[in-house]
This record gives sequence, structure tokens and C-alpha cells, in this order.
Amino acid sequence: MWTLEQIAQHVNGEVLGDDTWQVDSVSTLKTATKHQISFLSNSKYTKYLSSTKAGAVLASKQTATSVTGNAIVVDDPYIAYAVIAALLNPEPEIKPIIASTAVISAKAEIAASANVGHHVVISDNVSIGDGANIGAGTVILQGVSIGKNARISPNVTICAHVKIGDNIIIHPGVVIGSDGFGIANNKGKWIKVPQLGSVEIGNDVEIGANTTIDCGALENTIIGNGVKLDNQIQIAHNDIIGDNTVIAGCVGIAGSTEIGQNCIIGGGVGISGHLNITDGVMITGMTMVTKSIRDPGSYSSGMPAETTKQWHRNVVRYRQLDKLSERVKKLERQNQP
Amino acid sequence: MWTLEQIAQHVNGEVLGDDTWQVDSVSTLKTATKHQISFLSNSKYTKYLSSTKAGAVLASKQTATSVTGNAIVVDDPYIAYAVIAALLNPEPEIKPIIASTAVISAKAEIAASANVGHHVVISDNVSIGDGANIGAGTVILQGVSIGKNARISPNVTICAHVKIGDNIIIHPGVVIGSDGFGIANNKGKWIKVPQLGSVEIGNDVEIGANTTIDCGALENTIIGNGVKLDNQIQIAHNDIIGDNTVIAGCVGIAGSTEIGQNCIIGGGVGISGHLNITDGVMITGMTMVTKSIRDPGSYSSGMPAETTKQWHRNVVRYRQLDKLSERVKKLERQNQP
Amino acid sequence: MWTLEQIAQHVNGEVLGDDTWQVDSVSTLKTATKHQISFLSNSKYTKYLSSTKAGAVLASKQTATSVTGNAIVVDDPYIAYAVIAALLNPEPEIKPIIASTAVISAKAEIAASANVGHHVVISDNVSIGDGANIGAGTVILQGVSIGKNARISPNVTICAHVKIGDNIIIHPGVVIGSDGFGIANNKGKWIKVPQLGSVEIGNDVEIGANTTIDCGALENTIIGNGVKLDNQIQIAHNDIIGDNTVIAGCVGIAGSTEIGQNCIIGGGVGISGHLNITDGVMITGMTMVTKSIRDPGSYSSGMPAETTKQWHRNVVRYRQLDKLSERVKKLERQNQP
Repeated sequence: MWTLEQIAQHVNGEVLGDDTWQVDSVSTLKTATKHQISFLSNSKYTKYLSSTKAGAVLASKQTATSVTGNAIVVDDPYIAYAVIAALLNPEPEIKPIIASTAVISAKAEIAASANVGHHVVISDNVSIGDGANIGAGTVILQGVSIGKNARISPNVTICAHVKIGDNIIIHPGVVIGSDGFGIANNKGKWIKVPQLGSVEIGNDVEIGANTTIDCGALENTIIGNGVKLDNQIQIAHNDIIGDNTVIAGCVGIAGSTEIGQNCIIGGGVGISGHLNITDGVMITGMTMVTKSIRDPGSYSSGMPAETTKQWHRNVVRYRQLDKLSERVKKLERQNQP
Repeated sequence: MWTLEQIAQHVNGEVLGDDTWQVDSVSTLKTATKHQISFLSNSKYTKYLSSTKAGAVLASKQTATSVTGNAIVVDDPYIAYAVIAALLNPEPEIKPIIASTAVISAKAEIAASANVGHHVVISDNVSIGDGANIGAGTVILQGVSIGKNARISPNVTICAHVKIGDNIIIHPGVVIGSDGFGIANNKGKWIKVPQLGSVEIGNDVEIGANTTIDCGALENTIIGNGVKLDNQIQIAHNDIIGDNTVIAGCVGIAGSTEIGQNCIIGGGVGISGHLNITDGVMITGMTMVTKSIRDPGSYSSGMPAETTKQWHRNVVRYRQLDKLSERVKKLERQNQP
Repeated sequence: MWTLEQIAQHVNGEVLGDDTWQVDSVSTLKTATKHQISFLSNSKYTKYLSSTKAGAVLASKQTATSVTGNAIVVDDPYIAYAVIAALLNPEPEIKPIIASTAVISAKAEIAASANVGHHVVISDNVSIGDGANIGAGTVILQGVSIGKNARISPNVTICAHVKIGDNIIIHPGVVIGSDGFGIANNKGKWIKVPQLGSVEIGNDVEIGANTTIDCGALENTIIGNGVKLDNQIQIAHNDIIGDNTVIAGCVGIAGSTEIGQNCIIGGGVGISGHLNITDGVMITGMTMVTKSIRDPGSYSSGMPAETTKQWHRNVVRYRQLDKLSERVKKLERQNQP
């Protein structure tokens, strides 16, 4: 249990109401009970303010006055919520246990404080830092180094020589450092181009379930500090992702593309190879990026859904655009004096 | 071996021809041999009717008369085929064996009739119902409950507290209940928003290979009864998928979107977050859905392939649309009397 | 260490400069040191020729004269690089070791020269040829046959009865032979259509991380000789991929589609079911293919990114195309004499 006064201190907030009231968990406005704390960051949910049973609501200066019960006034209620949710839901302590069924090379260096799950395989010359938690069934190949406080889920595969910083979070099914798609056509037959680079990943990176990050062809694929990757993203060989860039699910980035810092890439975006995307670029979902982007700002492409009937008609019109343009040209000539 | 009379009884069909003829397996019209049964549900394959060597053909009233050999007349030949294929190919009996290399918490409750494969890991407080088959290398984390007759493939990961109904089929590489993509930007640095919800999955659900379903942020992600998911689908936190909705491969659905019952979503579709898609909506492949859909019916977007040469030209014309529209406006003004 | 004379012999090249000079590894023009060999195949990198410290540069007849140090003149520098990179980075020798934790059926036939990793599971009636390397945690179900020199990564799942030729390379997380997405709607409820076929894969095939290939419904899904598949590709039941076709990441191909030989499919392409794509077709990234393609050549679709502001405007114009077309028609009528 935490008093609202204690909660407020954690988020530089101010209590409106009873600052001795106690809460023990977070919930939504709609479902919270009296010892839970909730938040209002999206005006869509303002309608629940009058009926919420939450013991307190994290709110902005503007909205706090509409809270009928206790409120904690903060600059950014969503950030405050994230901080308080983490405070009230501490991660379980990592017990320094090596599961009996884990297979760890005698040449690997695993911190004494690490936890290694069942059926994990750790190969030669791997080093894993303090406080790591390695989920069941994960396989870490030779020469991999991983910093402190790693949270690695079950059934992850980390290939040879990948270097990972501190505070990594890797969700299940992730593959890091598998061969890039390097092939060369020798008189009609494709031969494999050896993929000799690896992957370097900075600090504070999160990688979503079943995302794949290929090793570099000669130099390394690089994921900067603070990068957040959602599920089922494909990052190809020699891509470089700048610090604090976030990428939503199902994005595919072809090889040798460099994405700047503080970019936000929406779900399902596809980015061609050998491009440069500058810092501070936002790309909306399902956009197709075929050229470098040199100016910060928001970029988009793709047609939003319409009824299939209307779509059929518009596709026909689209295909006639060339002719339509010619017809307009002709009309313009006719209209000339 | 089954007689055609027996087969017909299973599908409410009527035999035209020798109802004592015996068949033991299913095949295509093109490749069937005399003790095999085939079906005609797509007129594209009518051409094989005259030459098929099948011992019997499941056909509709309309097409059965064109069958030269034995036919079984049914309402829907494809449904009848599905039923007969299951009848002639019963799933192998599940043997109640716990593999010697499986690691199962003493606090887990596994039905005595369940089969658990090699190198499976089952954590504390997991419950698994009668007749389950858990494939090798699968990892099930604490507090998961799974109903009766589960068919779980190898190398699946089911994260903490996921609730699954009866008759689930999960294909390899699936990840259920991993963290949603919850981040908040705190003065330029992304902080993690704890993902405290889980996933609820109804009865009779099938989930394709390498599909990922994230846990909810606060409330649960929900997959209704009878939902069928193909491979490599991404379902984000707090999505709700209504009963009997089917989703084809490579679809990505952003967070907090609710999809109704009896929808059919084509392959490669992308759906934005926080939308409502009503019941009975069909969305054709690769459509980009950015707004809620309130009326049942079929929806589409995207441009079908054309030659790259023509595409280049049309892209240019598309980019000139604004100007073209202005030119037409000008012509209209000139033409006014 | 290899002399340039030896290197040149391997690639039918001619040394310009000191053919006794020795190199031991490959590198980029920018980072190579004096006992490394580099290559120039993309004019973008010509600028590094003057400053490179490489001991030799693989170059074409045209560009070799611009190399200030030693050069090896070859027909195709990228092919030559691939060959030399493989020569200088031989794959580690496969040691014929069966890991103590691997579980292998007594009814499986594993070549004496094969290496089987930790926690691998190999079921009944599997056969694996000479020189195979099976990564940790991989599961191979009953009746699978795999030819010589297989390189199978960790955490792969190969389902029952899949047939694979020689020289296969399979990256982590791949799933081969899981059920196709076969369902039939029986009065509003979806029933499963048993997936009774399997997958046949030819020789010299490479399959990228987390790619999925479904088994056939009745007949087999077929992957031809020399096919190269990148990461996160979805190949549905009964697809046929012709010899030497290459497919980039994140492509989805719906069921029963046949793709010819020597095709090149770009990343993120979606291809509908039941289509025929002829030999020698190239499809650019993110194209939507909804009809068969009968002529070789290059095909495209999709709108490249623009600023979100411009995109909003063009989407509106696109939706007005029908009306714009009508307005032009009206103008044409007015202009008729």
C-alpha cells in the first residue's frame, strides 16, 4: 500500500483531496476500485470521470478539476501512470539459479546473479552480465556478449558474436544475428555471399516477439540506444537504427538502410534498401518508402479502405489517369484563343 | 474401409451408383485412385470429372449428374469433403505420456490423459485439461490455464496468466501473451509502460505458425470462440476479436482495436489502433484500414500490380492529381457562358 | 594466408600488381587493412578507391585501372567477392557429435557424420544425410527426410513427412509443414479441413529466419531447387515455387499459387491465391498481385511515400477521381461543335 502523498512524490505531482488515502494497484477509470489508482490522458475517456470508483486519478492541471474524488495533478498523466504502474508492479526478483537442464559451456562467463532457465543452451565464449534472466529454451551461440539486467524470454535465438548492451528486453521467438539475405547470381544460379558481420545492440533496447535482426554482410547491423521494436519486424543486414527510434509491428527494412534518431515508424511500413532516413522522421502505417528522406517531418502513402465496389471503380479511374490527363490537355488546347 | 452408404450417412448425402463400393482415403479428382473419394466444389476442376479414377465424387445436385462413376450428392461438397477427410484421417490417439525430459512444476495441474513432449517447460500454477497434446520444446509460463483437447505444437511460448478454452490448436512458433508495445515519451526518452493485462482465448480457436498475440496493457486482449488465425499475424495489446472471425496470414492489427463477429480479413491487411470494425465485415487482402467500419460489407484498398513501366507513369499522374483537378476547374470556368 | 596469384586462380582473374602479396580476409574498401582483400561492384563506392588500404581489390576491367594498389581483374567483382569470402571463411568443420541432451528416436536414421545439438528432438522414421548440422532446440517430427550437408539452425520446427533435398540452409525460428489455413463455413461455424499433404523442398535451398511454409491440403507444397527465401515469408498450402526463384523478406503468398522459375520477388509483396506467375517475373517491393502474370518482365504497384500533408490532399483527389472524370466528360461534350 502506498499513500497518495508517496505516489505524488514519485511523479512530482500534487494531491487534490486526501493525501493519506492508500492505493495498491493501477486500473482503468472504468474498472478501478477504491484502493486503485487510475489516469486520464485521452479525452475519449473523460466520460468515465464522473462514475469512476478509483481511489485517485492521475490527471493534468486542466482535467484534474473534473475529478470528483482524489486527484494527483501531474504534467503528463500517461508518463506518470507508467511510472506508478512500474512502482506498484515491481518485476519479480531474479533468483540466481542455473536450471539443472541448462547446458552452459565451461568457456562461458555468466554473472553469479543471473538466472538461466530450463533447456537453455549457452555456447563458448558467451558473457552475460549481472541480473540477467534467460528464459527457457533460449539458445545463445558462441561469442555473444550481453550486458547487465537482461530480460530474455523463452525460445529466443541469439547467433554468434552478437553484442548487446545493458537493460535489454527480448520477447519470445526473437532471432538476432541470423544470416543476411546475401546472394549473387552467377550465370543463372544463386550463390551465397558469406555473411561475416554481426549485430551490435545498444542499451535500453526492447525487441518484440518474433522480430528478426540479421547480421551484417561485412560490417555490423547496428541498433542504437533506447530503440524500441515491436513484434514481427524484419531488420536486414547492415541496417542502422538511430538512438531512441521506435518501430511498430510488421515493419520490414531492406538491407544497408540507415534510419536516424528519434524516428517513429508506424506498423506495416516497408523501407527499401540503401536509403537514408534523417532524424526526427515519422512514417505513418503501411507507408512504402522507396527514397531517402532528408527532412524531418511526417510521411505517408497508401490508400485507406473504401467499399470494395467503390474501390473497383477508383482502380479503373486510376488506370485511366494517363488518358484523363491527355483529355484535359486536349481540352486546354481547344480552349486556347 | 468405408462403404459409400456409410460415407453418405455422415454427410446427409445420397449415393448415385454403387453404395457398397468401398473407399479408404481422400484425394483430388486428378490423382484419386479407385478406393479414394474426391469432391467437386470449384467449377475450375469440372474438366477432371470425365477422367477421374476416384471411387466416388462428392458433388452438388447440379454437378452430380456429370459424374460418370459413383457420386454422393450433398448440399455443400467442400463441407462434406472436410467432414469425410476428418473421418478417414482420424487424429492419432493421444497417449498419456509425460516425456522424461519435460520439466513440470509440482504446482502445475496436468490432466492425467495429457501428453507432454520432450523438453517442454511448464511453470507454477499452470492447469492443462484432458486430452491435451503439448509439443516438444514448448514453454508455458506461470498461471496459464488451457482447456480440454488442446493441440499445441512444438516450440510454442505461452506467457504468464493466459487463459485458453477448449479445443485450441496452436501451430509452431506461436507466441501468446508477450508484452504489448507500450511506451511513453518522457522528454525524448522512451519509458516502458508495464503491460499488466493478459490474453483470454475462447473455445475452438486455431492459431497459425509464428503468429503473435500480445497481452493487454491493463485489461486483457480477447480472442473469441471459433476464431481462426492463419500464420504470422500480429495482434496487439487490448485487441478484441469477435466470435467466428477468420484472419488470413500476415495481418497486423494495432492496439485497442475491436473486430466484430463473423468477419473475414484477407492476407496482409493492416488495421490501425483504437478502431471498431462491426460484425460481418469482409476486408480484401492488403487493405489499409485507418478508420472504424460501422456497416457490414466488403472493403478494399490498394493498387493491383501493373507493369513497372506503366506504374511509373501512373505514379507521376497520381502526384499531379491536385494540379489536374485545378486545370479542370479552370476549364470549367472558361466554359461558363 | 593466400597469395593474390592463388586468389586470382579461384576466380579466373588476372593480378595487376604484386601477385605474391598475401591476404587472409575480406573487408570493405573503407575499412580494409593491408592483408585484406576488398572489391568494387557498386560505383557508389568508387570514392574509396584512392584511400583504401586493402592489399588487393577485386575489380572489373573498366574500374581496375583506377585501383592504385594491387587489383585482381574479374568479370563480376561481386561474384568473385562471394567466392573469395567463402574461400577465406570456410564453414567450421562439422563434428560428428550427438549432444547428450538430444532425444532421437531409435527408429530415426541419422548419418554417422551428422552433428545434433542440445535439446534437439528427432521423431520416428526421420532420416538425415551426411554432414548435417542440427542446431540446439530444433524439433523434427516423424517421417521427415533431409539430404546431405544440411545446415539447420536452432529452434527450427519441421513437421511430419516434410522432404528436403541436399545442401539446405534453414535459419532460426523457421516452421516447415505446419497445417495450411483450411477452413470451411458450415452454417456460420468454421470447421477445419484436414491438411493431409506435406512439403517437398529441393536442393540448394535457403530459408530465412521465422519464415513459415505450410503443408499442402491434399497434394504437397513445393519449393524448387535453388530457391532462396529471406526472413518472415509466409508460403501457404499448395504453393509451388519454381527453381532458382528468390523471395525477399515479409512476402506473403496465399494458397495454391504457382510461381515460375528465376523470378525475383521484392520485400513485402502480397500474392493472392490460385494464381500463376510465369518464369522470369520480377515484382518490386510491396506490390499487390491479385491476378496471374503471364508475361516475363517487371511488375509493380503501390504509392511511394510523400509528406503526410500532400498525401492527405492526394487521397482526397483520388477519391474524387470518378467525379473528375465525369467533369472532363462534360467539358468534352460542351466543346463539341
